Amino acid sequence: MIGAGLSGLAAAYALREHGLDFVCLEKSPGVGGIWRRPSAGEPGPAYQALHLNSAKQLTCFEAFPMGEEMPLYPSHRDMAAYLREFAEWAGLLPHIEFRTEVVSVRQDDYGIWTVVSRDARGVETVRTFDQVVVAAGHHDVALLPNPLPPGAESFTGRVLHSMDYVDGAEFAGQRVVVVGLGASAVDIAADVSRHTARTVLSVRNGQHVVPKQLFGMSVDVIAVAPWFSSKSLTEQQEFIEEALRVARGPLAEYGLPEPPNRIFQSPVTVSDEILPRIRQGAVRPRPGIESLSGSTVRFTDGSTEEADAIVFCTGFGWEMPFLEADHPASGRGPVRLYRRMVDPDRPGLFFLGLIRPVGSITRLVEAQARWVVRLVTGESKLPEPAAMAEEVDGFLAGIERRYGLSAGASVHVDVTPYLRQLSEA
Amino acid sequence: MIGAGLSGLAAAYALREHGLDFVCLEKSPGVGGIWRRPSAGEPGPAYQALHLNSAKQLTCFEAFPMGEEMPLYPSHRDMAAYLREFAEWAGLLPHIEFRTEVVSVRQDDYGIWTVVSRDARGVETVRTFDQVVVAAGHHDVALLPNPLPPGAESFTGRVLHSMDYVDGAEFAGQRVVVVGLGASAVDIAADVSRHTARTVLSVRNGQHVVPKQLFGMSVDVIAVAPWFSSKSLTEQQEFIEEALRVARGPLAEYGLPEPPNRIFQSPVTVSDEILPRIRQGAVRPRPGIESLSGSTVRFTDGSTEEADAIVFCTGFGWEMPFLEADHPASGRGPVRLYRRMVDPDRPGLFFLGLIRPVGSITRLVEAQARWVVRLVTGESKLPEPAAMAEEVDGFLAGIERRYGLSAGASVHVDVTPYLRQLSEA
Repeated sequence: MIGAGLSGLAAAYALREHGLDFVCLEKSPGVGGIWRRPSAGEPGPAYQALHLNSAKQLTCFEAFPMGEEMPLYPSHRDMAAYLREFAEWAGLLPHIEFRTEVVSVRQDDYGIWTVVSRDARGVETVRTFDQVVVAAGHHDVALLPNPLPPGAESFTGRVLHSMDYVDGAEFAGQRVVVVGLGASAVDIAADVSRHTARTVLSVRNGQHVVPKQLFGMSVDVIAVAPWFSSKSLTEQQEFIEEALRVARGPLAEYGLPEPPNRIFQSPVTVSDEILPRIRQGAVRPRPGIESLSGSTVRFTDGSTEEADAIVFCTGFGWEMPFLEADHPASGRGPVRLYRRMVDPDRPGLFFLGLIRPVGSITRLVEAQARWVVRLVTGESKLPEPAAMAEEVDGFLAGIERRYGLSAGASVHVDVTPYLRQLSEA
Repeated sequence: MIGAGLSGLAAAYALREHGLDFVCLEKSPGVGGIWRRPSAGEPGPAYQALHLNSAKQLTCFEAFPMGEEMPLYPSHRDMAAYLREFAEWAGLLPHIEFRTEVVSVRQDDYGIWTVVSRDARGVETVRTFDQVVVAAGHHDVALLPNPLPPGAESFTGRVLHSMDYVDGAEFAGQRVVVVGLGASAVDIAADVSRHTARTVLSVRNGQHVVPKQLFGMSVDVIAVAPWFSSKSLTEQQEFIEEALRVARGPLAEYGLPEPPNRIFQSPVTVSDEILPRIRQGAVRPRPGIESLSGSTVRFTDGSTEEADAIVFCTGFGWEMPFLEADHPASGRGPVRLYRRMVDPDRPGLFFLGLIRPVGSITRLVEAQARWVVRLVTGESKLPEPAAMAEEVDGFLAGIERRYGLSAGASVHVDVTPYLRQLSEA
């Protein structure tokens, strides 16, 4: 098993519960994946101000609830501590080799997997396994606009990706342009605006900005509640749009573009902070960047801002250099995996957590882990490669209609139907 | 005229517009009252993080709209700059004597007012006026619980009032208990929680916590919109309660006590920040303080917290030492003023801005100022003292039913009926 972040721990727990033998290889010195990095002072997608956007009862493992003292939306620090406690409680630590990097994963003609790893002292180890679970994350590569805006080479300020952003104090008194409207963009804009002289949020494409709660309930809790998930898509859309009309009003009121499609058909960003910060003038919305010149940022509406730094919050990709270059989960193109987990042509390799749901990933990786256990124990069987390929084609056709086809888009999943699919044999 | 804050400037503008002669005495070195103090480094009710809770279009003067660049909820800094600009634009500065404190205001047997003032050099001046407008503010005196909680003398941390709070950085890494649920309490708890190791919000009595917007509209804009203000009180309550059910849910969900009465019949606190900060665990709600002992704060539910500081956000009073001790606006008991402005027994002295509406005070002091002009020019006349006293008795009976009788409660006004009353002869 590769990785001891949230997904890897879910898999390790399920395997251990069923008495299955496994080893978990983790390149960092501790469990927790992206959640442990800011406190450890390591770069990553998390920043000091990061809190969960999903409710604790959906983000914790089912078998190990978060304590009463834990807030509804824990901080990354809370989350890292929780994952450490879980690993200890579940007895997973003896199974994990820390500071151990995976060099290559290859299948031989008999279906056996050879894994080459390198430990902290640089010693390489070669081992064979019947199955390999990859839970290596998908927030490793900073995706900048490609190409950067015209004139970028002349820009005199700093150009950063959200992955480079740790703490707003670094930008005290500066003029900062934050690019994007995803989770990182709105968090970073709100956070940095408490330190800057001026903060601009450059948004090219509209997204649904949704508060963390409606009706006093966490929106992810609403999303999976039977009374809600049993509604038709149209009923769900009408219900949430009506609630947003009350709780938020039109995004244009805040100077943000309206999303191209209705809710659940366009990306959603969950935030309680960004709209109030805009209303206070602490964050000033602008459209997309047209060009850069010296210290000046020109936007597509012709307006300009002077800037000391631009933080591109334009998303993440991943690399799995231990896979063959043409592997359909390598991150170089749309992911082609049966049930988002299995290469139809190379069964025995399972990808865990290579998905982007709206809300917490935890229940999904737990269900993925249970399916892996059923496959490993022989309780479930994979379909023939052709049937698996057909399922992948159908899934990607739906993705293409909604978001277009890219590596990033191809990992989007809808929580309820995906859980249903994973619960089937 | 006494005072060159928002209310004093409104009065000065109205008087100047009508060509009436006046002098404005202001003890500080600039206009803007409480809004100018944090930037000037002077203590006062405002703190560095303070933004308006009322929309700019209702907070600016009608004759001098705030510019496009001004956010919907300006900061105290924005507001102070705006008030300076207004004073310059309206030509008020030549009428204002800065650094000039009023020592006494007394009426002689002929109804003439003698004002003694002291300038920056300590020189006293005695002048007589036909009328005096007092716009001296009512946020000057820090009201601490009286008595302080049992054991307060043994508390080893700092005890502050919100008036002592300027910037959360001062509390970096500390454990802070903020007391109250008014505007200062929720602002200060949210602000200080970005610096502290732990922030607790101690709330004895429930209040309605309302977001700054519903339906994307500022709640104070809704309150005065004809479609809303033409509803009956019950209809207004049902409408807002339904919106709060969607946008916020029950306060008990956040660990806060429910208010004793329905909306518009219990105090309202407008905040976008406090509920999300509670949900993130950054601010932890507790009930009222039962006792203090050493560094320990014990709450009425028996729970305890260690604390380095307690910030009592328990409100403000005022002193007007220049008035006779028994004056009914002296702040020593319920205010007894006809239309919240005129002592029935001592006409010729007008109090401006000695009111606490929900939302911005600006339209109200503008209406007060217009009424003063009508009285000064003889266009309107005051009723007989007995009729004025009767109006005061009726008003205070309503206050007593809703809030109980105190100096602070006696200055609460309902915006729409009060504006209607001021527009009458």
